[in-house]
Amino acid sequence: MTPGHLSILGMGPGDPELMTVKAARLLREAPVAAWFCRHDRPGHARQIAGDMLSPHAETLRFAYPFTTEIPVSDPAYLVRMAAFYDDCANRIADHLRKGQDVALLCEGDPFLFGSAMYVFDRLHPRFDCTVVPGITAMAGCWSAAQRPMVHGDDVLSVIPATLDGETLAERLAQADAAVIMKLGRNLEKVRKALRHAGREERAIYVERATQPQQRCMKLTEMEGPAPYFSIILVPGREAAR
Amino acid sequence: MTPGHLSILGMGPGDPELMTVKAARLLREAPVAAWFCRHDRPGHARQIAGDMLSPHAETLRFAYPFTTEIPVSDPAYLVRMAAFYDDCANRIADHLRKGQDVALLCEGDPFLFGSAMYVFDRLHPRFDCTVVPGITAMAGCWSAAQRPMVHGDDVLSVIPATLDGETLAERLAQADAAVIMKLGRNLEKVRKALRHAGREERAIYVERATQPQQRCMKLTEMEGPAPYFSIILVPGREAAR
Repeated sequence: MTPGHLSILGMGPGDPELMTVKAARLLREAPVAAWFCRHDRPGHARQIAGDMLSPHAETLRFAYPFTTEIPVSDPAYLVRMAAFYDDCANRIADHLRKGQDVALLCEGDPFLFGSAMYVFDRLHPRFDCTVVPGITAMAGCWSAAQRPMVHGDDVLSVIPATLDGETLAERLAQADAAVIMKLGRNLEKVRKALRHAGREERAIYVERATQPQQRCMKLTEMEGPAPYFSIILVPGREAAR
Repeated sequence: MTPGHLSILGMGPGDPELMTVKAARLLREAPVAAWFCRHDRPGHARQIAGDMLSPHAETLRFAYPFTTEIPVSDPAYLVRMAAFYDDCANRIADHLRKGQDVALLCEGDPFLFGSAMYVFDRLHPRFDCTVVPGITAMAGCWSAAQRPMVHGDDVLSVIPATLDGETLAERLAQADAAVIMKLGRNLEKVRKALRHAGREERAIYVERATQPQQRCMKLTEMEGPAPYFSIILVPGREAAR
């Protein structure tokens, strides 16, 4: 029995038209589709796929064991997440061993802070695998906000908001241009770090980029909580002139 | 007369199937298409578009005034490039003023080190504009190389190889994960900076990612010159374990 093939499909930031032609083709052909989600939500990648996923496809729903964001530094988080990813990988492997191809759907780009990396690390190189890149959330944001990010020899830093405040401020002060991901409950910490690094005035807040509910504004004009899928853009030195 | 609409289309890293569904649609509909190229080459964005560009489309070919890479710090470079981008913007504006829609085709993502940014800066907000994000060259590279880049709270630094050697080494030493773009004649300088920063062993060299001539290897095993469209990946801390 020839094992099945695993395709890890970047689904882009939200607008289904921002899927690549290749991801759209492999999605339509997928006999088995898998995706990550919160236990109480359909899952962002699944929503982007919409009715392009065949009604005859077998589906694997991987519900994260947490609904809140636990610091990645917490050992309990790492242990439970490792067990969770082991289980996801095993469920996919069961299908691959039966000769069935599997498509793993991922919001954004699979290899930029995507959960799919942890499954890939567990299944590769035991199984054949194709990784189809996706439009990153950050590219969705800076295109929607119409903000060129880096000119000339600017360095772009992509920074997870889960870092501690001091490290955040330090990284932001070093950066020419920056993208801050995984905002959610880290928003106030990020605001302080931006202020500390002298970058708050230049910062743009973008929520649910490329989706109908998209919001985009100067960070200094933004109030209220931020969802996990929101991003802060700090355009590079050209923008500071 | 209602002015035309400018669509800036990310064409992705090389494989035409890695264009987004939206870029493919707007490309097929474009009455006027513009792109950048070397004076002696067809242009990478134009090659990706292939026969999806209508044979009836009017075309604007923007040939860079240089065939070699002049340091961006050279004042002569900045003056000549500014005049060049002024001219490109004017040629596009001529069509827009006549009510014709224009599609500007860009390899990779338009707002990440793309020439389209300089045209956008000159035409926005005078004309209506849509920016369609593209798969970045770096996402094409790390997907093709099957290298997850950032796990947990790694910071990713996107670094242009045009920086001086000392700054390069400093930025690389600060980075958890790094992507080095615009290699070309900067390759040996980058090698030295990676060695200096203790990152040479982890570095992956990727050339013409997602295209038939794709090459991918450890940097330490790579010999000979690098084309401008090649990239070095330094995966994050997980890869260092």
